[in-house]
Amino acid sequence: MRLRLKPRDTSLFDLLTQQARLLPVGSGVLAQLVGSAPEARVALAETMRETEHRADEATHAILRRINETFVTPFDRDDIYDLAGRLDDCMDDMEEVADLVVLYRMGELPAGVVEQVGVLQRCAELTAEAMPRLSTMKNLREFWVEINSLENEGDRTHRQLLSDIFDGLTPAGTDPIEIMKIKEIADLLESAIDGFERVANAIETIVLKEA
Amino acid sequence: MRLRLKPRDTSLFDLLTQQARLLPVGSGVLAQLVGSAPEARVALAETMRETEHRADEATHAILRRINETFVTPFDRDDIYDLAGRLDDCMDDMEEVADLVVLYRMGELPAGVVEQVGVLQRCAELTAEAMPRLSTMKNLREFWVEINSLENEGDRTHRQLLSDIFDGLTPAGTDPIEIMKIKEIADLLESAIDGFERVANAIETIVLKEA
Amino acid sequence: MRLRLKPRDTSLFDLLTQQARLLPVGSGVLAQLVGSAPEARVALAETMRETEHRADEATHAILRRINETFVTPFDRDDIYDLAGRLDDCMDDMEEVADLVVLYRMGELPAGVVEQVGVLQRCAELTAEAMPRLSTMKNLREFWVEINSLENEGDRTHRQLLSDIFDGLTPAGTDPIEIMKIKEIADLLESAIDGFERVANAIETIVLKEA
Repeated sequence: MRLRLKPRDTSLFDLLTQQARLLPVGSGVLAQLVGSAPEARVALAETMRETEHRADEATHAILRRINETFVTPFDRDDIYDLAGRLDDCMDDMEEVADLVVLYRMGELPAGVVEQVGVLQRCAELTAEAMPRLSTMKNLREFWVEINSLENEGDRTHRQLLSDIFDGLTPAGTDPIEIMKIKEIADLLESAIDGFERVANAIETIVLKEA
Repeated sequence: MRLRLKPRDTSLFDLLTQQARLLPVGSGVLAQLVGSAPEARVALAETMRETEHRADEATHAILRRINETFVTPFDRDDIYDLAGRLDDCMDDMEEVADLVVLYRMGELPAGVVEQVGVLQRCAELTAEAMPRLSTMKNLREFWVEINSLENEGDRTHRQLLSDIFDGLTPAGTDPIEIMKIKEIADLLESAIDGFERVANAIETIVLKEA
Repeated sequence: MRLRLKPRDTSLFDLLTQQARLLPVGSGVLAQLVGSAPEARVALAETMRETEHRADEATHAILRRINETFVTPFDRDDIYDLAGRLDDCMDDMEEVADLVVLYRMGELPAGVVEQVGVLQRCAELTAEAMPRLSTMKNLREFWVEINSLENEGDRTHRQLLSDIFDGLTPAGTDPIEIMKIKEIADLLESAIDGFERVANAIETIVLKEA
């Protein structure tokens, strides 16, 4: 069975591409934020919130378009799912930015900076891959790379947890500080998993087309 | 494509309505429990468990009905999914009640009471919306309101986390007490997210019908 | 509508059976690991990692087969989903083994050993049930038993959390040790939930065939 995505749906791909392009914007703001002094973070968290609002609007534009366009419910489900997962990635990044400020975190451990680096590469790959969805070509490398980044993120996360509990991060051995930094590390891991779910959604769409 | 939900499936809607009506019962018990003195909570947690059992039975009645009724597998999946998500909401609320008792919590912070208030409004809106599923009408306002409540719950949750770590709740600065209260706050946030998943399931069904 | 799983797909069932047979291997290694002295655990975690790699290969063999075989996208989704959930179970078990070593855990509480016992029974039931998928027969008892094991795991988990916070485990009252053991208990609970998701995926497939 072929996906019923016809030329008339071009703008759906454009909208998905627009939504995906906001991800490296968000991950770039997050990278700045985790590398900044605490007093500079409030403004960056605000920028993050605005980026997340723009992503929300992009998501809703896609949902409206899906609803107006004739596609079978089945295909519709897949696109709906993809748009939702892209939105989740941005939500997770925004939550991290917000908590770093709310928790008044000081210097963040190197492991967190590494996790955000993985997120940035995931976001860039996703933004680059999205326009290729209209031809369904050259997408295999995308999900292979995202899977490999997710494995890297997993290793970084586990090592960071071990360091946190060993008192080897700026949180030291203070249980409360450890809880805060652990929560941020866990949320970043969950954001990286979110990109894997995006890659799986794209793989599902492409495999059906095959 | 139209959803193949014919008049003969009326009782399926009745069953979903019955299942959904148990949610405000459960959230009401939970509200009583978090507002009660610790010694009164044991009996309320038992009432909660009974409500959860009734919800389980209601869920199984729906699954049996889906299985007996001729509907295409695709539609069946959506109803199956909706029933499962309604069931998850009750399970989450029951888990909170159980842990509040197991952890022998003392006074709970105002933020937890606010979270339960959001849950109550979600549960009531869901119970009111469910009978409208048979006509597929006037449901848009339902998922818009649930999304707005979920945003409110999100803000409450984040502020509560910040207060918890700042030692501004009855848990004070005791790390063990902080872990307990944080787990309860996280579970409540997850229960509220569960209602958003119910709303998304209903939106999916309605958009296909459109 | 009937599932389009024809005799020519026999090898797909063989592949799923092969994948599922690795689960009791993994849960057996995990049981050994949690029962071992810390110095013996490093080698067992390595065995676990190898088992997880074999499961990954088995999963990819299934995905390739799904892609090569003519089945409708809809059925394909269900098998795809099942293979992914089986893979998640192994990933969760491997993560537990890895963290027990990374966190240099000492003696583990009886509740953790019980949780791993539940996991072992889930893994064995799943491996036994999988060959029956080709005839779609005698599977009801499988998901009923898994649901009952999941309830048992749930009770064990909650009691363990209560014991952990009461200082009744080898972690004593040290907040850092409590955080570590709680994370392991939570991951085991999540692994058990993973088997329930496998059971639900099988139930979905069987109900459609009915």
